[in-house]
Amino acid sequence: MAYKAPIRDMQFIYDEVLNIDQYSDLGTFAEATKETRDVILEEMAKFCEQVLAPLNHVGDTEGCVRNDDGSVTTPKGFKEAYQQYCEAAWPTIGAEPEFGGQGLPHVLTLSLQEMASSANMAWAMYPGLTHGAYSALLTHGSDELKAIYLPKMVSGEWTGTMNLTEPHCGTDLGLLRTKAENNGDGSYNITGQKIFISAGEHDMSENIIHLVLARIAGAPEGTKGISLFVVPKFLVNKDGSLGARNPATCGKIEEKMGIHGNSTCVMNYDSAKGWLVGEENKGLNAMFVMMNVARLGVGLQGLCQSETSYQNAVIYAKDRLQMRSLTGPKNPTGPADPIIVHPDVRRMLMDAKAINEGARCFLYWTALYGDLMHVSNDEAVKTKANDYMALLTPVLKGYITDKGFENAVNGQQIYGGHGFIEEWGMSQYVRDARIAMIYEGANGVQALDLVGRKLAQNGGRAVQSFFGEIDAFVKANSENAELAPYIKGLKTSKDSLMAATMWLMQNGMVNFDNAGAASTNYMHLFGICGLSYMWTLMAKIALEKKGSEPFYDTKLKTATYFMERIVPDCAAHLAKIQTGATSMMALSADEF
Amino acid sequence: MAYKAPIRDMQFIYDEVLNIDQYSDLGTFAEATKETRDVILEEMAKFCEQVLAPLNHVGDTEGCVRNDDGSVTTPKGFKEAYQQYCEAAWPTIGAEPEFGGQGLPHVLTLSLQEMASSANMAWAMYPGLTHGAYSALLTHGSDELKAIYLPKMVSGEWTGTMNLTEPHCGTDLGLLRTKAENNGDGSYNITGQKIFISAGEHDMSENIIHLVLARIAGAPEGTKGISLFVVPKFLVNKDGSLGARNPATCGKIEEKMGIHGNSTCVMNYDSAKGWLVGEENKGLNAMFVMMNVARLGVGLQGLCQSETSYQNAVIYAKDRLQMRSLTGPKNPTGPADPIIVHPDVRRMLMDAKAINEGARCFLYWTALYGDLMHVSNDEAVKTKANDYMALLTPVLKGYITDKGFENAVNGQQIYGGHGFIEEWGMSQYVRDARIAMIYEGANGVQALDLVGRKLAQNGGRAVQSFFGEIDAFVKANSENAELAPYIKGLKTSKDSLMAATMWLMQNGMVNFDNAGAASTNYMHLFGICGLSYMWTLMAKIALEKKGSEPFYDTKLKTATYFMERIVPDCAAHLAKIQTGATSMMALSADEF
Repeated sequence: MAYKAPIRDMQFIYDEVLNIDQYSDLGTFAEATKETRDVILEEMAKFCEQVLAPLNHVGDTEGCVRNDDGSVTTPKGFKEAYQQYCEAAWPTIGAEPEFGGQGLPHVLTLSLQEMASSANMAWAMYPGLTHGAYSALLTHGSDELKAIYLPKMVSGEWTGTMNLTEPHCGTDLGLLRTKAENNGDGSYNITGQKIFISAGEHDMSENIIHLVLARIAGAPEGTKGISLFVVPKFLVNKDGSLGARNPATCGKIEEKMGIHGNSTCVMNYDSAKGWLVGEENKGLNAMFVMMNVARLGVGLQGLCQSETSYQNAVIYAKDRLQMRSLTGPKNPTGPADPIIVHPDVRRMLMDAKAINEGARCFLYWTALYGDLMHVSNDEAVKTKANDYMALLTPVLKGYITDKGFENAVNGQQIYGGHGFIEEWGMSQYVRDARIAMIYEGANGVQALDLVGRKLAQNGGRAVQSFFGEIDAFVKANSENAELAPYIKGLKTSKDSLMAATMWLMQNGMVNFDNAGAASTNYMHLFGICGLSYMWTLMAKIALEKKGSEPFYDTKLKTATYFMERIVPDCAAHLAKIQTGATSMMALSADEF
Repeated sequence: MAYKAPIRDMQFIYDEVLNIDQYSDLGTFAEATKETRDVILEEMAKFCEQVLAPLNHVGDTEGCVRNDDGSVTTPKGFKEAYQQYCEAAWPTIGAEPEFGGQGLPHVLTLSLQEMASSANMAWAMYPGLTHGAYSALLTHGSDELKAIYLPKMVSGEWTGTMNLTEPHCGTDLGLLRTKAENNGDGSYNITGQKIFISAGEHDMSENIIHLVLARIAGAPEGTKGISLFVVPKFLVNKDGSLGARNPATCGKIEEKMGIHGNSTCVMNYDSAKGWLVGEENKGLNAMFVMMNVARLGVGLQGLCQSETSYQNAVIYAKDRLQMRSLTGPKNPTGPADPIIVHPDVRRMLMDAKAINEGARCFLYWTALYGDLMHVSNDEAVKTKANDYMALLTPVLKGYITDKGFENAVNGQQIYGGHGFIEEWGMSQYVRDARIAMIYEGANGVQALDLVGRKLAQNGGRAVQSFFGEIDAFVKANSENAELAPYIKGLKTSKDSLMAATMWLMQNGMVNFDNAGAASTNYMHLFGICGLSYMWTLMAKIALEKKGSEPFYDTKLKTATYFMERIVPDCAAHLAKIQTGATSMMALSADEF
């Protein structure tokens, strides 16, 4: 299956919507010049289109194999592609210079992640998880741990994993049982079983750095007794060379619906040596750093599978001849018209296009705040950035993966019967996209995080700031007649979200189940409002430049489609939210 | 995975909602007494729960294997289950007594199909396709052909298939190339390749009766030159014994996303002997008989995977302990509460429950008209029945398979990470359910059939009749205060559907693309309206009997949920429809 990196769209966001150049005086942004950005985009595009994309179907059909000795063999070509990736220094782009990184802003690495994950999601998870583990160690690890692990993780020689889930607990980490015993020499012995560990064991790197949640003997019960440990596959000698094999082993590879190319392992820790990351019993805090990075990355995965499915659906829709257009033949000399002439095929393509481009903008726009949170000199900006990251992470994760899956299903639908046949490849996008709705906190958990924690933080400051920004934009552009139709859509979605927020304030506290019952609809409403704002920002620029390049005219048409065909869902979400929890909770358990 | 036939719900529909007993003076209904119905339901339930359900996962993991000699081996246990099914005379239930059937009404066989397909969709397709082929032969075959083939198809000794699709055409059958040459002795030689042929070759029956669309040499181009042929795997001697092997062979088994237990074959016809069914060049008419039967059956499959996924999600939601209820512990002595206490889990369960029970009622209610069309003595009823079958078939197929897939995905979601692991079985329901949106006319084709053909037939008589029935019901029950909240929901959805219908009348003819652009939303709106009506009918009975059995109270709560949480989608569908085709069709092909 084909993949073509949407470079022009990425440039549009970086150069025009976000206007990255305006930050060139801020720390890491100094290096992120237009020239650098373009070179990076073009080189990574080549690698993803030419190396990773052709391995995607291979990964799906071969999967990962656990050998009798517990080692894991990844699909043919995965290891070589990873070697190429490291040789080209791709893992270093966004990492700290102190540990060998190039220190470019995170917002810029997002497009690299997007390309990799669009071309080959299962492969991209190996470096993706390394990045998450790197972030947690960077933020919470001691200088000694950082010195030992980070340089090799930055170079890509070592990869990383996250070990949270156990058979009896995923969402509810307070129940976890993996034990840590203090050896008295600074190390701990870790014992327990972890499941669903992506990239848990494989042959792509010389060492694997596991970050493992465990409970120190005598620690309090629940979430307040959980600590985070770094547990390397091979112990590291003082000189940096690899020592003994740590008893952190793959007991089984799970057979999954998708992402077959990634090794999802049951990991057995049998008195494996580990070292504490951060403080005792504060493991969840340290893990949250990793999880926020990961959640943005998973939202991105939703976009990626939607994008690739869309691209391949477009190719097929232009090629497949079937029936005549309802308004008269469009390919009169052929036996039938290409199916792209049919409105219902258009509906599926336009839904995907409008959501993909809006979601990309929303992801990048939020990621920019992630950078500003660190590098801005303005306290107000830093506060706002912090607020936005907290508030929007669950929206980006939940909304974009839900819609991404829907779009992947629609892309498959356009192929008709061929979509159901594995050989054609469209099924894989659907099966791969499915996991993004589940892992890193199932989407229902994201929705609850949004309404139950994020909304109310600091007296609702974050959401008020978001509304305030939209109001200011609307006001500042109220004289722009050409922009009016887009502003109208933005106002509709913003008014719905505001009404839903008010409803939650009045009813969610009285009965917490009202908040829970509203949560998923609220998250989707927030997603639509966010994308409406992005589309209005994009439309404004496109209006200024229309005529100069067909790209801008297409943007305007797609923005119009978004307002006409996606925004109407807001009313349905709001109406459902406002019915409250009563009918949802009315049945006793045995009435089901 | 478990499956428990929802017998009480089926009885509720047959006995109370449809009140089948009122038709006992009408032909085949005489035999369909309450006692007979109950025995059939209970016996079939046992077979499906105990024999078919345990084979479902086996079918998924083993799949079908094409052997070197072209024969196909079905998964372990499939053949034996089929033998048991035939020995118990299940295939005869709904068939004509003239050919060995028991002649019970079709509406009654629907529940048997439902149970089989819920327990094991891939297996149920073998007898399901036989039923479709039987119907086409019964309606259009000559007496001679009927005498040769039907008795053995009724007994189940022979199975049937439908051969429409070719590599370059599925929806657009006018393009088909398979040739038929007249041998001058009443037989034809059929040559060509068909793809996606479900149950095309297998080891479950001694003969396979293929119904094949082909073009007789010299026939007109397009759909007006297509004829239907019966092509047996083994020729049948005068005495009914099997003769020579016909060169109708399986060239390949497709690797599919789901329904692995059904053999989806590439069928090669290499001068295979066939006999004309119906008139020359009128093959599509004959095939439509089969397709309408099949489409109702596919709508049912949507319900079935939704139902089984739901049932297993309920089991897990009651068992899995994770987090505490938002309103305080519900399982204080346990380490956490069962996840069924969480509103967002409820949302997914209630969505499925409300749609499943509404869809079941809508399917059975429509199938009853299918029977009345044949047996009623009242011309007005026959006309209405004919109209409803034509109008509602695409709605049932498209809406219920779309929603059924969504519900299957939600059932999987409730399992969290375990839902993604094949061992747990929830992935299979999703993968199996996916095909129902595609085959027998992709759902977009159903939607176009609805707005482009069915709505306008006989000057819109069918839809007016449907609206008239709802209006009369609303009027007749306007004094029923307890029913008022349900009537309100029904009116909302009916008013939206009416407004959409008016819009289509005014705008669909001016620009056919407006009809195409509205089609899928219109189909969904129609589905919601149909289910609203069903839920109001069910609520009326439940109100009359509430308190006598907890079943009725649960029905009322579920009806309320449907009105509050599903009906609000109507407004979104209507708003989207009313935007027309402009933004959907705005892009030129190269702008995608």
